[in-house]
Amino acid sequence: MSRAVVLLSGGLDSYTAAAVAQRDGFLLSALSINYGQRHARELDASRAVAAALGVERHLELALDLSQIGGSSLTSSAIDVPKDSTFAKATADKPMVIPNTYVPARNTIFLSMALGWAEVLEAADIVIGVNALDYSGYPDCRPEFIQAFEHLARLATRAGVEGRPLTIHTPLISLSKADIIRLGLSLGLDYGLTHSCYDPPPSGRPCGRCDSCLLRAAGFAEAGATDPLIGAAD
Amino acid sequence: MSRAVVLLSGGLDSYTAAAVAQRDGFLLSALSINYGQRHARELDASRAVAAALGVERHLELALDLSQIGGSSLTSSAIDVPKDSTFAKATADKPMVIPNTYVPARNTIFLSMALGWAEVLEAADIVIGVNALDYSGYPDCRPEFIQAFEHLARLATRAGVEGRPLTIHTPLISLSKADIIRLGLSLGLDYGLTHSCYDPPPSGRPCGRCDSCLLRAAGFAEAGATDPLIGAAD
Repeated sequence: MSRAVVLLSGGLDSYTAAAVAQRDGFLLSALSINYGQRHARELDASRAVAAALGVERHLELALDLSQIGGSSLTSSAIDVPKDSTFAKATADKPMVIPNTYVPARNTIFLSMALGWAEVLEAADIVIGVNALDYSGYPDCRPEFIQAFEHLARLATRAGVEGRPLTIHTPLISLSKADIIRLGLSLGLDYGLTHSCYDPPPSGRPCGRCDSCLLRAAGFAEAGATDPLIGAAD
Repeated sequence: MSRAVVLLSGGLDSYTAAAVAQRDGFLLSALSINYGQRHARELDASRAVAAALGVERHLELALDLSQIGGSSLTSSAIDVPKDSTFAKATADKPMVIPNTYVPARNTIFLSMALGWAEVLEAADIVIGVNALDYSGYPDCRPEFIQAFEHLARLATRAGVEGRPLTIHTPLISLSKADIIRLGLSLGLDYGLTHSCYDPPPSGRPCGRCDSCLLRAAGFAEAGATDPLIGAAD
């Protein structure tokens, strides 16, 4: 079996991406990042998900991006948007980037995964990015992933020695409903996951941030019940 | 004045690169990384250097790469090489990578600098990489830097909005002696810096690791006295 590093946030996308990689025969080492995120409770979910998947290793690295700020997810001075209507890209403005964008986050996370992959002699990284449902994050696009693969080849001992890295993005062109259908078909328990960007003290999903809204719309379109919401009743 | 983020390790290369950027008109924000390095005392030097340069800000971020290991600089289980003879690249083996190579380090550090630059609305990053004297690190090569610039354009809000990032590598084709001559001509005090990879408890340079050997050879070739060594007499 080939070993792969999977970036595991504790959300439903990364859980599904990891499960797809396992189905495809990879032995997983999971990496979660405590980056000073407002929703740090997703790290608890990442541990539950890693245990459910039965990954070989689960490493948590800390890098406090709240020292940099610049995003509603890493700065308490910026409010998380609520009740968004998800303005679509237009010809004039091809991408509308919300304030939940964390500057360079996926570049930083993929770099960490790259370093760990090199030490583990893994030639594969799995990331649950998705470009379709929510096109507002520049670092979720296929062209970004391709550029990172190219960079990785130049950056590492593995690349120099002819063992190039492949980044797997099994969800990149799926809708949220497709992702949920796929995960349910693989038997995943989405009750283990956490998606809310701005959880109230109760820890229940706020139900109004972009992440909650996209998750709810996905479950609705998939004709499924979200166990996180079901459990609240 | 344009603002730039400079990666400042506390060594003589990054000090010189920062001073060149200041000479060229940049207002500097300095970023140092506590990455679990064996020679963490270089962080003290980075503070002294930042103060001497009079940078606008000095940010220190912590990311413990010793959790990943895989390098003599981040794993106590791997010895730092001593008394190297610096095997040159050959046609068969174009690059000889020493065990002081830290997997993906410059990719990780540039990613952090990229995130901070975006928040500061800085379009420039300065890094003191050098490809000539010591060609063993894949992530010090011009092609790596170019690939990172390309990635940054795709990864960020700034890139999407037409403010591409430039990475400045003023030392990339200089010899260590050239770097030292340049820094001395700018009035730099290299007594503030730290280069040794494996400092003994005294904190004095070991004099035998690759970094000490290259520094000594550079001062000798430049016909200058290293104030760190001079001070030991």
